[in-house]
Amino acid sequence: MSSVPGPVDPAHLRAVLDGPWARVRDAHRAHLDERFLPVYGETGDQARERISRLLGELPVELGIGGGFPTEYGGAADVGASIVAIEMLAQVDLSLMVKAGVQWGLFGGAVAALGTRRHHDAYLRDIVSGELFGCFAMTETGHGSDVQQLRTTCVYDPATQTFDLHTPHEAARKDYIGNAARDGRMAVVFAQLVIDGRRHGVHAWLVPIRDERGDPLPGVTIGDAGPKAGLLGVDNGRLSFDHVTVPRDMLLDRYAQVAADGTYSSPIENDSRRFFTMLGTLVRGRVSVGGAASAATKAALTIAVRYGDIRRQFGTPDAEREVLLNDYLAHQRKLLPALATTYALTFAQAELVTALSDVQGGDGPVDEHRQRELESRAAGLKAAQTWHATRTIQMCREACGGAGYLAENRLPSLKADTDVFTTFEGDNTVLLQLVAKGLLTGHRDEFGSLDGWGRASFVAEQVRDMVLERTAARALIERLVSAVPGRDEEVAVTDRGWQLTVFEDRERHRLDGAVRRLRNGAATKKDHPFDIFNDVQDHVLAVAAAHIDRVTLEAFVAGIDATADPAARALLSRVCDLYALGVIEADKGWLLEHGRLTPARAKAITGVVNGLLKELRPHMRTLVDGFAIPDAWLHCAILREEPDRQESMAAHDATS
Amino acid sequence: MSSVPGPVDPAHLRAVLDGPWARVRDAHRAHLDERFLPVYGETGDQARERISRLLGELPVELGIGGGFPTEYGGAADVGASIVAIEMLAQVDLSLMVKAGVQWGLFGGAVAALGTRRHHDAYLRDIVSGELFGCFAMTETGHGSDVQQLRTTCVYDPATQTFDLHTPHEAARKDYIGNAARDGRMAVVFAQLVIDGRRHGVHAWLVPIRDERGDPLPGVTIGDAGPKAGLLGVDNGRLSFDHVTVPRDMLLDRYAQVAADGTYSSPIENDSRRFFTMLGTLVRGRVSVGGAASAATKAALTIAVRYGDIRRQFGTPDAEREVLLNDYLAHQRKLLPALATTYALTFAQAELVTALSDVQGGDGPVDEHRQRELESRAAGLKAAQTWHATRTIQMCREACGGAGYLAENRLPSLKADTDVFTTFEGDNTVLLQLVAKGLLTGHRDEFGSLDGWGRASFVAEQVRDMVLERTAARALIERLVSAVPGRDEEVAVTDRGWQLTVFEDRERHRLDGAVRRLRNGAATKKDHPFDIFNDVQDHVLAVAAAHIDRVTLEAFVAGIDATADPAARALLSRVCDLYALGVIEADKGWLLEHGRLTPARAKAITGVVNGLLKELRPHMRTLVDGFAIPDAWLHCAILREEPDRQESMAAHDATS
Repeated sequence: MSSVPGPVDPAHLRAVLDGPWARVRDAHRAHLDERFLPVYGETGDQARERISRLLGELPVELGIGGGFPTEYGGAADVGASIVAIEMLAQVDLSLMVKAGVQWGLFGGAVAALGTRRHHDAYLRDIVSGELFGCFAMTETGHGSDVQQLRTTCVYDPATQTFDLHTPHEAARKDYIGNAARDGRMAVVFAQLVIDGRRHGVHAWLVPIRDERGDPLPGVTIGDAGPKAGLLGVDNGRLSFDHVTVPRDMLLDRYAQVAADGTYSSPIENDSRRFFTMLGTLVRGRVSVGGAASAATKAALTIAVRYGDIRRQFGTPDAEREVLLNDYLAHQRKLLPALATTYALTFAQAELVTALSDVQGGDGPVDEHRQRELESRAAGLKAAQTWHATRTIQMCREACGGAGYLAENRLPSLKADTDVFTTFEGDNTVLLQLVAKGLLTGHRDEFGSLDGWGRASFVAEQVRDMVLERTAARALIERLVSAVPGRDEEVAVTDRGWQLTVFEDRERHRLDGAVRRLRNGAATKKDHPFDIFNDVQDHVLAVAAAHIDRVTLEAFVAGIDATADPAARALLSRVCDLYALGVIEADKGWLLEHGRLTPARAKAITGVVNGLLKELRPHMRTLVDGFAIPDAWLHCAILREEPDRQESMAAHDATS
Repeated sequence: MSSVPGPVDPAHLRAVLDGPWARVRDAHRAHLDERFLPVYGETGDQARERISRLLGELPVELGIGGGFPTEYGGAADVGASIVAIEMLAQVDLSLMVKAGVQWGLFGGAVAALGTRRHHDAYLRDIVSGELFGCFAMTETGHGSDVQQLRTTCVYDPATQTFDLHTPHEAARKDYIGNAARDGRMAVVFAQLVIDGRRHGVHAWLVPIRDERGDPLPGVTIGDAGPKAGLLGVDNGRLSFDHVTVPRDMLLDRYAQVAADGTYSSPIENDSRRFFTMLGTLVRGRVSVGGAASAATKAALTIAVRYGDIRRQFGTPDAEREVLLNDYLAHQRKLLPALATTYALTFAQAELVTALSDVQGGDGPVDEHRQRELESRAAGLKAAQTWHATRTIQMCREACGGAGYLAENRLPSLKADTDVFTTFEGDNTVLLQLVAKGLLTGHRDEFGSLDGWGRASFVAEQVRDMVLERTAARALIERLVSAVPGRDEEVAVTDRGWQLTVFEDRERHRLDGAVRRLRNGAATKKDHPFDIFNDVQDHVLAVAAAHIDRVTLEAFVAGIDATADPAARALLSRVCDLYALGVIEADKGWLLEHGRLTPARAKAITGVVNGLLKELRPHMRTLVDGFAIPDAWLHCAILREEPDRQESMAAHDATS
């Protein structure tokens, strides 16, 4: 347990956090000036107009379409495109979401699901922002279970066209970004039907507006109306009344329909094909997770800096009132959230690198790695967006009434990120996806959740799990194997012990879930839904424990890669706080299962409080490590420094 | 452990929940029609204009100024005025806050701190809404520690006037409701200075605008600008540049200044006098807690009803997709929140009754009961507002993307209530107030927190605590004493056992805090701030445990007072879920301290899941018991019933 040796230069933290795409981050910091900052108190129309305009004015230095092939104006750098979205999120979340819809969802779908003729015809205009588009998947009736979308697209060999149709209100496309105002085309997901036979969900590229911006015949466009946040994003609703779509507008990378209506696909199983198609779109989830963390960093920077200037209540032993950050209760709010933010940043960086490795090349994608990537993306999206929701809320409260005023940024950070726990996959559904991957060891297709209910499926697929270490494998093996057998002999700040607790908790929970699912499959054959549903809380806890372990391992690897000794020592203490925070929060389970003795559990609370005291002087350094430009914080209470005048007056008043 | 015998008529629940002021609730349900509902997507100016207008149009049947004496147009019924605020909160939170500022804070201060000449001159116009006013206490620099306000009011015997002055920017009045647009007068809190001597904070009634609505000379009025929510409330900033205030505008119930400048007060100690003055304003805190619970009920009603029509994912054993409310994970979100809402409703009802008893009469106020009331109000305000923030957030997420659209009400419920954890006392500060009351047994004056730091103070004042039972004393004694000595012999659903755990947890935590504070006082004499700060987390946990116990006791008393056997049985199961939910959430501490065996802790998780299954069929009944008129929910997804068309289509699609 080495303590932090004096002040740490935030530049060293910044270097570690910025990671391999530091260049992209710096370009954003340099080129996104005041023009791009949020405007507080706008109407919805004003916000939409401004954000649409700004999207066209994004400096070329940002390389915003960086994820696309170079021949269409991109840089063939997936990682850069994700990092760009993270950076936009710190400036304005409407701008980030709007860019995410255009270049991530819409452009990404055309690139990933289309073939050369679609790319040649549209990608250049999509990358340049000439052609705005929508990603029309979600329907009013189906958001999580997108395999069950109700929009139909029926092929007619006679005309060699598709008939795209919305059969009822619940089948209308809903919440679609870019639909209400700016989208000229949409990637529309619908059930493909040929000669009365259903082939599952496919995607078509469909024009929805003419040059003047009016809806095309047969297309009804509605407005989702005012929202909690993201006022600058024009979410809308799309319905199709027997709209004719030419045969070549099917995005046909994974399935083709010949002129005579012959259907062919390299992937026979409908469900498997659909989830393969979805898998190519994983970067949307990675972006949202990263953006959530980016917004969390902005909120924490505001709250920590405010807590370092705001004073309240005097004490007999000091001339001035006490800084908020000096209160233990305030530290208990801010510092663990800060530690978790660091942890998730390392996990996100590892995920972006994995994404870049798996999907960045031209060659075929390794299926095992792709499944692992999807699981990791789902889990970290859930972890980062829930962490954002909780942390930004806490920062709002930590800034008191000032945190409720728009001019101090926190209200928009909160309202704009609020939907992140829902879009790109509802978090609870995503955790189930993670759990399913763990239970079936990534071997099997990702089906919809109905598969869970089949007793035979459960009995066959659920298997004992092999923990796959994620990052810095050798280092972590070494740390874990160095832990003595008896807990009493090792400090709770021993990294190997912490890693062991995280691993052990995941494995034990997983084993328990496997056992309960097998028992259920044997005893509840007549109520297949109950087999899964009765253990749903347990299964979600497995996923949560898994994400925690992956995150801790990423943090450990990140510290290992930190060159500066002081920064390394500081990060190591922050990692202690993260690990012990997770353990403290879940000590009920650990005690219940004999993983922790009562004495050790009590000791942890003391150690955590000690860590808070030790990290108190580094709070500002830790947020400075995020390297958010001052102007981007766009926060009145940080500009005013209210306590300068105040402190002078306080002295008068008490003298 | 008696199970619920079939369906329960929500009217029986409603009767219990409506309580003694059912008449007031019914008047609001009958007379607040569509005109008073929120308008989604308004600009700030539109919202302010509308809310101001509506305030003048509130039907007389509501008896909105009910808390004031009959001679000024009120009904001398404090309880009715609190319940009225709760009801307004379900309709529109801006309307509720604006009414709360006018009749609760502003009018309440004039009534409680002023004397007959102020009452005769102003109360009638305040009650009728002719005279709008502000409650100008909070300053930019001081919100929690209002004893340290910096605004000064200096008496000059020569002119027999006061000079009201804002010495610097941090002393301006901030976040003041009614200030930016409508307020004609303000109750201004400032430091009274006579002949160079400070007498502490007092209040004056000060005109701020002329008849035309322009600021009076020397008064600068600013606008707090856009906020996270409460758009209809015109929060502003007030600064005074040597404004002359006539001598008789001092609200002089607790302190008088004679023409020659002689100061007199029945309460000698400045601090004690100030907290006595604040104590008369306790009803503001009671209102905010009640309003938070009222909004929580609206959010839960929406989420539960949506979960009963929204389906997602199919199963092999059912024709239709699964209702959200049938998923264990969804029940784990909604039902414990619903149980806590019931618990807090009973606690709030008891608090309103106590308030009405203590402050409702004409006679002198019993000081012990007044202190207890203040502590209870502080604790339940914190509990209810944090519960609102968490629960409304959860309901938003439980409704998915629909929960993010303004038309479904949840965004405004969330944004509008968000500041409730801050205003009328920051929750963390309020918990400290509760803890302080417990540690000193209500014997001593409520000083500002600086007292905590004085070693001698801690050593003298902290004492062993006597648990004071709150409600249904005899019943609770009986239940507790019936518990066998050995835990293994009693079910976790035994009410006596649950009560014992809650009591025991509070007592043990309190004893520990006392011990640690005494040790600190002995060993940290040179760092008095640390004595308190090092145990701040422990002290806050004491307060939380206390509030939990008070809440459980109120629930038990409420069940005892329920006549209908089926409703009683249902409430009893809901109470089990509340009690076991608290125990489950804190099982780490209980295991650590040997209050729970590992086997019993594990069993509780199973029992909770069993309760969820048992309560599932009653979810709708439980929200119907809140008796919120359909129109008030003002929620598109409940009107559309999207699944009717959907289910028909689903049948087609799968056939």
